[in-house]
Amino acid sequence: MVKAAKPLFDRVAFIGIGLIGASMALAMRRAKVTNFIVTCDSSAKARKTALDLGIVNDATKDYGKAVKDADLVVIATPVRSYETIAKAIARHLKSGAIVTDVGSVKKEVIAAVKPHLPKNVHFVPGHPIAGTEHSGPEAGFAELFQNRWSILTPPPRTSAKAVVKVAELWRRIGAKVDTMQPDHHDMVLAITSHLPHLIAYTIVGTATDLEGDLKREVIKYSASGFRDFTRIAASDPVMWRDIFLANGPAVLEILQRFTEDLTALQKAIRKTDGKTLEDLFTRTRAVRRSIIDARQA
Amino acid sequence: MVKAAKPLFDRVAFIGIGLIGASMALAMRRAKVTNFIVTCDSSAKARKTALDLGIVNDATKDYGKAVKDADLVVIATPVRSYETIAKAIARHLKSGAIVTDVGSVKKEVIAAVKPHLPKNVHFVPGHPIAGTEHSGPEAGFAELFQNRWSILTPPPRTSAKAVVKVAELWRRIGAKVDTMQPDHHDMVLAITSHLPHLIAYTIVGTATDLEGDLKREVIKYSASGFRDFTRIAASDPVMWRDIFLANGPAVLEILQRFTEDLTALQKAIRKTDGKTLEDLFTRTRAVRRSIIDARQA
Repeated sequence: MVKAAKPLFDRVAFIGIGLIGASMALAMRRAKVTNFIVTCDSSAKARKTALDLGIVNDATKDYGKAVKDADLVVIATPVRSYETIAKAIARHLKSGAIVTDVGSVKKEVIAAVKPHLPKNVHFVPGHPIAGTEHSGPEAGFAELFQNRWSILTPPPRTSAKAVVKVAELWRRIGAKVDTMQPDHHDMVLAITSHLPHLIAYTIVGTATDLEGDLKREVIKYSASGFRDFTRIAASDPVMWRDIFLANGPAVLEILQRFTEDLTALQKAIRKTDGKTLEDLFTRTRAVRRSIIDARQA
Repeated sequence: MVKAAKPLFDRVAFIGIGLIGASMALAMRRAKVTNFIVTCDSSAKARKTALDLGIVNDATKDYGKAVKDADLVVIATPVRSYETIAKAIARHLKSGAIVTDVGSVKKEVIAAVKPHLPKNVHFVPGHPIAGTEHSGPEAGFAELFQNRWSILTPPPRTSAKAVVKVAELWRRIGAKVDTMQPDHHDMVLAITSHLPHLIAYTIVGTATDLEGDLKREVIKYSASGFRDFTRIAASDPVMWRDIFLANGPAVLEILQRFTEDLTALQKAIRKTDGKTLEDLFTRTRAVRRSIIDARQA
């Protein structure tokens, strides 16, 4: 019989218990990463669901109560709420506690959180590359991070011991861990995640602005490509609003490149330039192959 | 014991046996819509695969041999090849034969085919709203059209009997049937299919133009949204080149609306206008609900 690994943390506090927080909590319980999980969430409904579904041991709307005695605090709310949260939890954190997060933007998040935390607390910013279009603790599931990447972006002089501990947490719940500079992370995510979401939101918005008849038919015949965009564009509105506000410069930079490329294709269609179209479509097909090979399909 | 429905067609010829042609052939055999299926395909590999997998009874590269004696001819090749095909098959078609197709553009297709067909042949243009990102007869499967829509766009004065027969064919292989004006079809598809594909091709192209390091990371972290676009952008290059060339005006019109909407979002990000972003993201989320309710998710 293999002896179970020792819990990494006695007590864990989740600030926000949505899809990601709940999935982490479920995965951490299953992997016995901790013995006790408490959440602080402003929504009474989310607190009740998290308790009813056995996702957490305790739930409160009081930041102080939640983080007091916690060895690990996970911030899992929309990124623009982090500064308020950092200020609210700072004086309740115990000495030596680790604070981490799951936000899709890292540079602004570090600037919003780090200055408010006491010197004896370790901040290890993180971002799991996983999710679904669903929201709320009821959407959480323990397998969400299996074989997915989790990126840590520790600022200079972060305790190596704290970074190793957070990395170990992610590995125990099935994820692969990478580290990155915060601004590099924000550019990679602007390309792989933020721009795709912006485009999907735009195209679904364009379709909803159509006249009545056409709009109904877009729903009816959505299986032809459109529905894949609607899935992406069904993600949490406040979470995504905050991401675009927090990662504006990187998103605008990659959006500029995208717009140039789209304009070139528009011209190719107008000039019935089949070669340009076919060449691009052949190149993009190969990218799919790379993703399948990288086992991220 | 329920008596099996009588075959609708004695002999069916598929011009082109790719994903759609092969799926139709497999579904038609299973539903006993016909007793004999022949394909004419210029690719020796496709012909061999179609024969080896039992998708067709016979395969040839000779248009005349394929369509001679056929009661139904299904054109299932990239849309810009239709005119050549119509000219090649015209004098071999038997009197009373029905010609249909599966192309994603209808107005230009009708103009390319109809003038070349003899008066005693019925042309019933069609388009099943179904597909995958895979190509070739080996990608075909009989269930592809289950609960999907197939749109017929018969020109004025098309034989009602021929239209009813093609509609019955689609119903027997699991599809729901709708009829539409050709130019209305082309606008609906420009929105639901052609623009989404153009956008997906563009964004995957933008990503492949990145510098080496960034490009590798885009593949590695593609699970964050990008990979859904790569799936769409893995569709057949020649088929899609032809669609954009054949449906240029409708695609350019809807692309213009999309670009205006994207510019507005760009401005909202630049001005950190959270309300505009959140309002749109909330509206688009509701569209997903409509698609799930319409059972097209």
